[in-house]
Amino acid sequence: MMRWLTAGESHGEALISVLEGLPAGVELTTTNIQDALARRRLGYGRGARMKFEQDKVRILGGFRHGVSMGSPVAIEVANTEWPKWEQVMSADPVDPETLAGLARNKPLTRPRPGHADYTGMQKYDFDEARPVLERASARETAARVALGAVASAFLNQLGITLVSHTTAVGTVSVPEDAHLPLASDVDALDADPLRCFHAETSAAMVAEVDKAHKEGETLGGVVEVLVYGLPAGLGSYVHWDRRLDSKLAGALMGIQAIKGVEVGDGFATAARRGSAAHDEIYRDEQGRIRRSSNRSGGIEGGMSTGETLRVRAAMKPIATVPRALATVDTTSGEATTAHHQRSDVCAVPAAGVVAEAMVALVIADQLTEKFGGDNMTDLAANLRNYLNRLAYAES
Amino acid sequence: MMRWLTAGESHGEALISVLEGLPAGVELTTTNIQDALARRRLGYGRGARMKFEQDKVRILGGFRHGVSMGSPVAIEVANTEWPKWEQVMSADPVDPETLAGLARNKPLTRPRPGHADYTGMQKYDFDEARPVLERASARETAARVALGAVASAFLNQLGITLVSHTTAVGTVSVPEDAHLPLASDVDALDADPLRCFHAETSAAMVAEVDKAHKEGETLGGVVEVLVYGLPAGLGSYVHWDRRLDSKLAGALMGIQAIKGVEVGDGFATAARRGSAAHDEIYRDEQGRIRRSSNRSGGIEGGMSTGETLRVRAAMKPIATVPRALATVDTTSGEATTAHHQRSDVCAVPAAGVVAEAMVALVIADQLTEKFGGDNMTDLAANLRNYLNRLAYAES
Amino acid sequence: MMRWLTAGESHGEALISVLEGLPAGVELTTTNIQDALARRRLGYGRGARMKFEQDKVRILGGFRHGVSMGSPVAIEVANTEWPKWEQVMSADPVDPETLAGLARNKPLTRPRPGHADYTGMQKYDFDEARPVLERASARETAARVALGAVASAFLNQLGITLVSHTTAVGTVSVPEDAHLPLASDVDALDADPLRCFHAETSAAMVAEVDKAHKEGETLGGVVEVLVYGLPAGLGSYVHWDRRLDSKLAGALMGIQAIKGVEVGDGFATAARRGSAAHDEIYRDEQGRIRRSSNRSGGIEGGMSTGETLRVRAAMKPIATVPRALATVDTTSGEATTAHHQRSDVCAVPAAGVVAEAMVALVIADQLTEKFGGDNMTDLAANLRNYLNRLAYAES
Amino acid sequence: MMRWLTAGESHGEALISVLEGLPAGVELTTTNIQDALARRRLGYGRGARMKFEQDKVRILGGFRHGVSMGSPVAIEVANTEWPKWEQVMSADPVDPETLAGLARNKPLTRPRPGHADYTGMQKYDFDEARPVLERASARETAARVALGAVASAFLNQLGITLVSHTTAVGTVSVPEDAHLPLASDVDALDADPLRCFHAETSAAMVAEVDKAHKEGETLGGVVEVLVYGLPAGLGSYVHWDRRLDSKLAGALMGIQAIKGVEVGDGFATAARRGSAAHDEIYRDEQGRIRRSSNRSGGIEGGMSTGETLRVRAAMKPIATVPRALATVDTTSGEATTAHHQRSDVCAVPAAGVVAEAMVALVIADQLTEKFGGDNMTDLAANLRNYLNRLAYAES
Repeated sequence: MMRWLTAGESHGEALISVLEGLPAGVELTTTNIQDALARRRLGYGRGARMKFEQDKVRILGGFRHGVSMGSPVAIEVANTEWPKWEQVMSADPVDPETLAGLARNKPLTRPRPGHADYTGMQKYDFDEARPVLERASARETAARVALGAVASAFLNQLGITLVSHTTAVGTVSVPEDAHLPLASDVDALDADPLRCFHAETSAAMVAEVDKAHKEGETLGGVVEVLVYGLPAGLGSYVHWDRRLDSKLAGALMGIQAIKGVEVGDGFATAARRGSAAHDEIYRDEQGRIRRSSNRSGGIEGGMSTGETLRVRAAMKPIATVPRALATVDTTSGEATTAHHQRSDVCAVPAAGVVAEAMVALVIADQLTEKFGGDNMTDLAANLRNYLNRLAYAES
Repeated sequence: MMRWLTAGESHGEALISVLEGLPAGVELTTTNIQDALARRRLGYGRGARMKFEQDKVRILGGFRHGVSMGSPVAIEVANTEWPKWEQVMSADPVDPETLAGLARNKPLTRPRPGHADYTGMQKYDFDEARPVLERASARETAARVALGAVASAFLNQLGITLVSHTTAVGTVSVPEDAHLPLASDVDALDADPLRCFHAETSAAMVAEVDKAHKEGETLGGVVEVLVYGLPAGLGSYVHWDRRLDSKLAGALMGIQAIKGVEVGDGFATAARRGSAAHDEIYRDEQGRIRRSSNRSGGIEGGMSTGETLRVRAAMKPIATVPRALATVDTTSGEATTAHHQRSDVCAVPAAGVVAEAMVALVIADQLTEKFGGDNMTDLAANLRNYLNRLAYAES
Repeated sequence: MMRWLTAGESHGEALISVLEGLPAGVELTTTNIQDALARRRLGYGRGARMKFEQDKVRILGGFRHGVSMGSPVAIEVANTEWPKWEQVMSADPVDPETLAGLARNKPLTRPRPGHADYTGMQKYDFDEARPVLERASARETAARVALGAVASAFLNQLGITLVSHTTAVGTVSVPEDAHLPLASDVDALDADPLRCFHAETSAAMVAEVDKAHKEGETLGGVVEVLVYGLPAGLGSYVHWDRRLDSKLAGALMGIQAIKGVEVGDGFATAARRGSAAHDEIYRDEQGRIRRSSNRSGGIEGGMSTGETLRVRAAMKPIATVPRALATVDTTSGEATTAHHQRSDVCAVPAAGVVAEAMVALVIADQLTEKFGGDNMTDLAANLRNYLNRLAYAES
Repeated sequence: MMRWLTAGESHGEALISVLEGLPAGVELTTTNIQDALARRRLGYGRGARMKFEQDKVRILGGFRHGVSMGSPVAIEVANTEWPKWEQVMSADPVDPETLAGLARNKPLTRPRPGHADYTGMQKYDFDEARPVLERASARETAARVALGAVASAFLNQLGITLVSHTTAVGTVSVPEDAHLPLASDVDALDADPLRCFHAETSAAMVAEVDKAHKEGETLGGVVEVLVYGLPAGLGSYVHWDRRLDSKLAGALMGIQAIKGVEVGDGFATAARRGSAAHDEIYRDEQGRIRRSSNRSGGIEGGMSTGETLRVRAAMKPIATVPRALATVDTTSGEATTAHHQRSDVCAVPAAGVVAEAMVALVIADQLTEKFGGDNMTDLAANLRNYLNRLAYAES
């Protein structure tokens, strides 16, 4: 069982991630985390912040000399802009006069549609939105990506690899019959402006972003995460919350701005007839039992089938729209428009990286649950024995 | 905090549901549960089992004289066909000779595509699929619907009501601009052959089911659950797994055969531009702050906004297709076709009832978390105070 | 990971236990559960109820033909006295006139000191104690003992055995240097009037019970649970709530009437000096690394050491004292004495059986966590590999 | 619901604590945490480390301008000795030659009796004890005390105060009829060399520590935590793991070196007769229903009764005994003695501070569960309404 918590505000001193339950013997360095965070900043259509923002990473617990110790992992992602926010976001009280002179400290009383602002103020009893948006911001996903890098290192060591890519931006989407990217395609994906594996579609997406930018608009889209090398039997049908698809759906829908989740062919499957909706079973030339298609996305009965796992998430357009949306000033009660902060046109490529991190965390947790979670020697031996038993049963 | 577990096999003696964390003071009788279970059997295109199957319900814990006591709720839904299965599904050992003579006890070695059968055998080390399909079967959802009836009774007492309906069957779907059903429409919905609120579409769905039946096919579809009367502020942006949408997605994807989940406009939102994707904020004539649309499905920043909650789930076609799918006999290793058991053409209307139960359980849990979970007197008072504070802030 | 819930009222129709997470392949029959429940009724000094009460057990889920299936286990322990309570404890409403005529239904407005009665009424907003005492009653422990039998069957299959015994009743206690009972002593223990392994002390305990009975008193005492055959390394130091001692302490203190818990020499250790408080490490003749004493109770750093696990729980005297205690009538506000119901003088022997069940559940959970929890084939292989690795490291 | 995780190694760069679930509106500054950490270093008989060790604290999330925001709280307690350990405990790989030259990096292959060393090596597959002792060390309790300070600030704001004190050191203990310290006595307690409230006993404890020190021994003892101002009804009898005493026992036994836990009179109660073991109920002059004694420690039926909460924990003597204990060198297999590091004679006063932190965290969690956990305005109003209802019921 793995547990993890993130903490930290968007303009706070640092983000903190803690992961409890990682086996001993996982190999990773600070660079792995920095690389993952750099991928989160990729993508055409990102605003200025992404460019000048750099992630200073410190691993504060759980690793020694590049190897995990079984103890909780703690990672700090420092905010390089902290000096600008030191007083506005100070944890300790600050002299009110000092604060009064700071433009950055001005109460945010025009809650932005599509954001947590207004409901957050209601729930937590705030008279302005600053404490809400500081935590609700997608900046927090950096803390998840940091932990996702840890989970991925663990999975890679067991021969399991993840790939995320963009399948739609606005109304432009990858054709249904396009090839799926493999682990060996990740560098190419990262080099693509939209992390899209289909060159023609990628070009059309760039045009879509440019058009939206010109028109003061923002765009959403769809990302897909693939997992290769997964053993059959993660998750279970025995109880609803043991289902791998349930866990993945919760994890993906738990990302900021995600409004839909699909496993395999998802909503398209719902429109098909039974004979064309499932994956038939056959024995391949090596005598192994396989599925002749992968409409299910590698999950049946809430369990991984051993085929490629495939899940998708739909992201709504960024809610801070340059053409400002209508709102109400909560202090005056007057109708007004939402404050527009410097922002991106499209964050879909980054959402893919975040979705990949979430999937990695779910899979890593399920592996420790099924194979025992203490150290990589035992875990890998248990996994091997299990795969041998399955292979033997099929022979 | 609420916790709940279900137990029991499809052809076992009974299903058992236990719910821990229900406040004292909730009013309910056995009839409420029976009515909910009857709704689960509704729907055009259901097989014979649904008709002769009757649910014998006993409340074994948590209620006295029609009122909950704060102690765990236990519900038994007995299997009226148990005498036929008593030996095949006996918990205790049965004389092997007796078993050998029973056709019903024959090992199931032709795992069905689209089901948990094969992976379940691998995971749990079975040499036939009986122990898998007995638990993986959608029969288990009766145990959830029983608990959903308890959750709904709790919610109704606080003025919160749920409505589920069918929005698509196969390729036939309700038009986008159709009216949403209200709580007062539930009887009409239950009387509709497909629990579809749009009469014209319902007729087309009936035709679709008839056609599929004739062609030896099965159908999936989409269901929607609406929640009216929800206070703003359930769920939270402060941590991913506190998000109401994350919890709902996990709960809905945890239903058998569900492959996709949407909140509000879901995937459609991902294709829109920012200015047409969010819900603007205004002050209504009574001075209350409202949203001018409900694209978000009543959830922003992972919290209920106080507008109508709206979530959807996509169900794949029933996997036991009359035109049998290809599989492998796990004993002989030969290619064969899957065993076809008596089955339904379309279970989408029932899925709506199950989805409603899951949503009710999530919302009930979140209410006890936000307002304190011990008794209805205190919980209702805490809710009232909260709503008064919000109204005051807006005045 | 195992999860379990119990439900049901003391005079309700039945108790229900559900256990989720038991591996497939555990062998057990209804008789095992009945035997465990019979042991819970043992003991000198029990009242009349224990004698005429018989436990009718049904396994309603999770087992088929004497073998677990990996699905949730459900057990019903029916109340053989239900006909007498059918109206008083009916889940559904009962005609008020009928109820008015029933002595058993009289509101209990004289809360008993030492019981949950008064605080339970406050917390759950009841105007009498019936709904409180029905659930707070130690009758509920039958549901735990039923699950403990399942956990024990699982453990036995792996060569792990539990023994519980009484070490003190009132002021009479087993000498410090007495031998610890082994698994082979359980029948002798069960035959002893107080489940005490030291014959002389047992005789003195009988006298103590007789004396207390004559004087209208009740008695508490201390029970000890021993676990033999445990592998080293269950639990962990890496996080406080991963500690095996923390889990055991929570489980034992969660039994009705328990007010103290010790691991190993417990409070006595706190009074010793460092050189006499720990267990030195040596290599035995077979080359295995062992401890030369077991003051720690088989737990160091929150982990099982591989030596015998030893934990104790202190039970307060039964609170329903024949010489009635002072209380207040919550309706009239007048001082009065607590209602005295038929009761036992001493329930310590039964508490040992309950404590054994709780320890079995904790250990079973920890085994599935460390070795993977799906089926006994894989779990036993993983355990074996682990033990081989440890033996190899020591050679 | 509150969740919290700690991370970090004893000689690592920093300890990290994250607490999720704290309501918005709690007032606290960095100084509160530093003060709590300073109290953890108090006590006669502490070694040199306690004196030169200083805790550099940073609040990295959850607070702004001295007030909590409802978002996760993150606290860093930096290790002021980090420069000395930077290479030995580096998270990233270090040049092997550099490491080879460092005495501090020498493999620890003589596992210390009474510590996690040997079992930790087995469980996590290490060939030396360094990665074990770094996390198993009591240094980790600083991270808990930091969070305990946050929980205490929350409780104080609601009028709930905690006091911890030492009741035994070695064989010296406070007389049974000694007065209990009040919140107003905390400064005096902190000034006492052993945090003992009974002057005469404190003097005897000092002598005991001196004697042990001279003889190369270490000492354990007993600490007690008192909570004043608690409302009735925290925790519950409805399920074993809802019991407040179960939660407290798990939390206290989860502290390093604790081997026993008592609630109220604990083990002493087990030796009493029923008429002298419980707390009778009466109505006081103000008409309030009270208990005439507090043998129960303020918990009945697993719930706080509204009387003073009183729990105790027994600490074994420090396991690193100057007269070294026997062990085995795990590399050579030879018998040897355990390495003796600089250490304390007696850490009991510090254990009291840690126990207080753990109790504060449990109580804080239970308050958010019972009264709703989002902000102090609503939580305090809900608590007030509850107390008013109880007072009204008694009038």
